[in-house]
Amino acid sequence: MNWDDMGNIYATLKGSENLPSIAVGSHVDSVIRGGNYDGILGVLTALEAAETLVSEGIKTRHPVTVLVWTNEEGSRFRPAMMSSGVITGKFDRESMLAVKDDDGITFEEALNNSGYKGDTSNRFSSENYRALLELHIEQGPVLEAENKDIGLVLGVLGMVNYEIITRGQANHAGTTPMPVRKDALHAMTEIIRHLHHELDKLDPDLVYTTGEFGGSPNIHTVIPDYVRITLDARHKDPRVIEQVVNVVENLPTEILRCKVSFREQWSRHTVEFNPDLINIMEESIKKLGYPYKKMYSGAGHDAQYIADVVPSTMVFVPSKEGFSHCEEEYTPLEQCWKGANVILHTLLALDKK
Amino acid sequence: MNWDDMGNIYATLKGSENLPSIAVGSHVDSVIRGGNYDGILGVLTALEAAETLVSEGIKTRHPVTVLVWTNEEGSRFRPAMMSSGVITGKFDRESMLAVKDDDGITFEEALNNSGYKGDTSNRFSSENYRALLELHIEQGPVLEAENKDIGLVLGVLGMVNYEIITRGQANHAGTTPMPVRKDALHAMTEIIRHLHHELDKLDPDLVYTTGEFGGSPNIHTVIPDYVRITLDARHKDPRVIEQVVNVVENLPTEILRCKVSFREQWSRHTVEFNPDLINIMEESIKKLGYPYKKMYSGAGHDAQYIADVVPSTMVFVPSKEGFSHCEEEYTPLEQCWKGANVILHTLLALDKK
Repeated sequence: MNWDDMGNIYATLKGSENLPSIAVGSHVDSVIRGGNYDGILGVLTALEAAETLVSEGIKTRHPVTVLVWTNEEGSRFRPAMMSSGVITGKFDRESMLAVKDDDGITFEEALNNSGYKGDTSNRFSSENYRALLELHIEQGPVLEAENKDIGLVLGVLGMVNYEIITRGQANHAGTTPMPVRKDALHAMTEIIRHLHHELDKLDPDLVYTTGEFGGSPNIHTVIPDYVRITLDARHKDPRVIEQVVNVVENLPTEILRCKVSFREQWSRHTVEFNPDLINIMEESIKKLGYPYKKMYSGAGHDAQYIADVVPSTMVFVPSKEGFSHCEEEYTPLEQCWKGANVILHTLLALDKK
Repeated sequence: MNWDDMGNIYATLKGSENLPSIAVGSHVDSVIRGGNYDGILGVLTALEAAETLVSEGIKTRHPVTVLVWTNEEGSRFRPAMMSSGVITGKFDRESMLAVKDDDGITFEEALNNSGYKGDTSNRFSSENYRALLELHIEQGPVLEAENKDIGLVLGVLGMVNYEIITRGQANHAGTTPMPVRKDALHAMTEIIRHLHHELDKLDPDLVYTTGEFGGSPNIHTVIPDYVRITLDARHKDPRVIEQVVNVVENLPTEILRCKVSFREQWSRHTVEFNPDLINIMEESIKKLGYPYKKMYSGAGHDAQYIADVVPSTMVFVPSKEGFSHCEEEYTPLEQCWKGANVILHTLLALDKK
């Protein structure tokens, strides 16, 4: 077992031939008040597959590597998928090491303290790896609603993320007449309402979320002067994302005497996973006889960055009532092991190619 | 100079007769990102008046006490007007000592560390005091707009303060279809809009503010499941406040698939200041020849609690553009000293009665 300079962890079973490794893995970090499945189930699945190879005495031609990505969620240190992003060139390493948490601790300091800072030469790379397989919970209600055990993931939806800010004037709650107020929270409620009104006219598969929200001075006796939200919007079709961009870019610049501004924080195009690998996985699912559905992931995953470097794909297992990023997350054990079977059989089929 | 068990500070000039003291003062604490006038100007005015008595060799019959109230704003330790509230029996002393700041430090710990914890016997009381005079900035735009130097304060507006909460379901931003979402922030924007719509129908002198706002999990990739705001509403007429109460009590209990709840945090009736003291102050203003306006305070002040115990009143000086509880707070020096003159001359007139 070793780890690279971003804290990604690799544990490898040797293969019988001098071939690149087949990687299986996910992440172990979570969000604040998250559940017990997002991420960790994919790591346990990888360990289960590796243990089965050993306990059953199955020799593979390729080495098999159990992989744990560091900081997939970006909860403490932003952005999400930081470490897979750095090793695939999406993010600048020095900038990421300098990112601070809310207490002012840098990612580099936390990484050094973790004891999992390793060598750059251990990084996942296209020379050393043949493929990446990742199991994850769906994080949505579709598989459960359609009575499917398995989601065969074709890719990851494109998205765009904005920060939107309203600025007014702080003033005393008891003494400032209503008509002269510049209330940034009142202005933001009108902006959020406007966004819902406009975005609901677009394609019904579009999902969008105002997840972060806060402002100042946040005192019960003072009119808010600053409110900030984030807008996250996702759709497979880049033309729909473009329509979202148009709605944001045409926001009013002033509303209720407050200034309105916005800034794109990040965006990604839809990532298509490797068709050959998808075919091999589909064959494996069919042989196992599990009900399945081809689908796109609305959530981001490390595999979408790795897909640029080596063939990658994912398998989803159902999320009860679609719950995710909350304590209610749950996947029945039977579907967990069906998912693990898909990973193992795909790995073995790929090993023969 | 001494201080009482709640950290209120008293500095007394002796009088020539055995009479209760005339107190003049305000507070020195402020709000986060507050200005340089709210509170401290009233303390400086009291010191200026006392210094003038000494330097001019003016002997008063009554002792004159410069008073500094502790924790008027309630920014670090809630509620506001904590220490004047305790010594006038509005708040329970033990409960207030146990109040914690955001870092978990109790008011009692902070008070002990300040070095200003004194004896209960030093408290302001009806036996030892004849009256309280307080100068404060208006914290609103009325005096400036009407070209008045002085506000003669008749009382403090009644108010009611509510906490309003929406509860939905946290879920992943990329995978949860729009029609099944329970977005507590979206629900709260509808509540705030509803409040504005209904409250704007009431008396035009009503002021109301949604000053505090926050929620969880506050992550850009997660649908908000909990949002909390405060609603502060003020008006002289208790019937108007009652109309506000009706609007809140008739809020929908569910909106956009989220639960809505509310809780009254506190309320107060309009406090009328002492008519005799107001008359003495008005005579003093007339003799000084300053343009003045009789008015009510929209903001709360320690004097409103003290008014229950001894005759109290206040004088306001203008706030530039009505700014208050922000760094833009400003009162021209000429109006500061006019206000100080009103305090001094009222004190001297009262001393003769």
